[in-house]
Amino acid sequence: MTTKEFGVRDGEKTVELPEKPDAGVYFIGHIRTPWKERKDCPKNARESDAVCTVELDERYRDGLKDVATCSHVVLLYWMDKAPRNLVLQVPRHYGEPRGTFALRSPARPNPIAMSVVKLLKIEGGTLSVVGLDCLDGTPLLDIKPYFASTDSVPDAVVGWHKRD
Amino acid sequence: MTTKEFGVRDGEKTVELPEKPDAGVYFIGHIRTPWKERKDCPKNARESDAVCTVELDERYRDGLKDVATCSHVVLLYWMDKAPRNLVLQVPRHYGEPRGTFALRSPARPNPIAMSVVKLLKIEGGTLSVVGLDCLDGTPLLDIKPYFASTDSVPDAVVGWHKRD
Repeated sequence: MTTKEFGVRDGEKTVELPEKPDAGVYFIGHIRTPWKERKDCPKNARESDAVCTVELDERYRDGLKDVATCSHVVLLYWMDKAPRNLVLQVPRHYGEPRGTFALRSPARPNPIAMSVVKLLKIEGGTLSVVGLDCLDGTPLLDIKPYFASTDSVPDAVVGWHKRD
Repeated sequence: MTTKEFGVRDGEKTVELPEKPDAGVYFIGHIRTPWKERKDCPKNARESDAVCTVELDERYRDGLKDVATCSHVVLLYWMDKAPRNLVLQVPRHYGEPRGTFALRSPARPNPIAMSVVKLLKIEGGTLSVVGLDCLDGTPLLDIKPYFASTDSVPDAVVGWHKRD
């Protein structure tokens, strides 16, 4: 666990994690982005229109059949640089403690990020996408088709979140 | 790995998985639904308006601060009954092989499901939600706020998918 960039701040609260994980995940590829350090990453995915690439390992490539017919896909990836034991945290740009499950912060018991991205093209095992904000080299966990019928809720509200 | 309900069908293709997982996940709670067997589950989450509950383990409850201000949340959960080695699969209701990453099937290298649910209320560590289609007792991995600004794409298309 790397806490170098994630020291505990005033108002934050940690818990003791279980001794052992309950299940294991495979890294099925990696995400290539222009951002080499956390401070360079966009604050959220709509801040950048950078084209990023998702490189799926050879082993899983047949699984991409039919994916090119999707305008958008959901990516799950592993944010392995964040501490997993914070339940209350103080995001730098908000300044007051929030519950971990009210945030999209990488610091959470299971550091699995979810991003909805626009799919531009697929060549071999490489997907070109727009809508990511993660570090270069981030391990990929999953690619899913985005179904507007179940995944899109245009009027959803996050009450605590200040409007820009 | 349970393949009892997921035998390999004609047109399906399996791969050899890595010997060891790359990272571990914690089950942070469990999901209670009315569905005890796979055949009873709704085909997708919009098919049912059943109120399901998400029971977060005591250890993580402080992480729920501010979550009640969200109209919708993203749930990630572990579909541990499915095989992980299918890259091409033939969904029963479509009848032809599709790439695993073009499907929301539980059979995938990392059986992490993502559902967008409507949050009705939170009492202690229990969230009441609408929009799930998983088995009773499914292990919970994460709760995230749903941000319409980044997560909602009303005009997204899954080209291979037949319209009802």
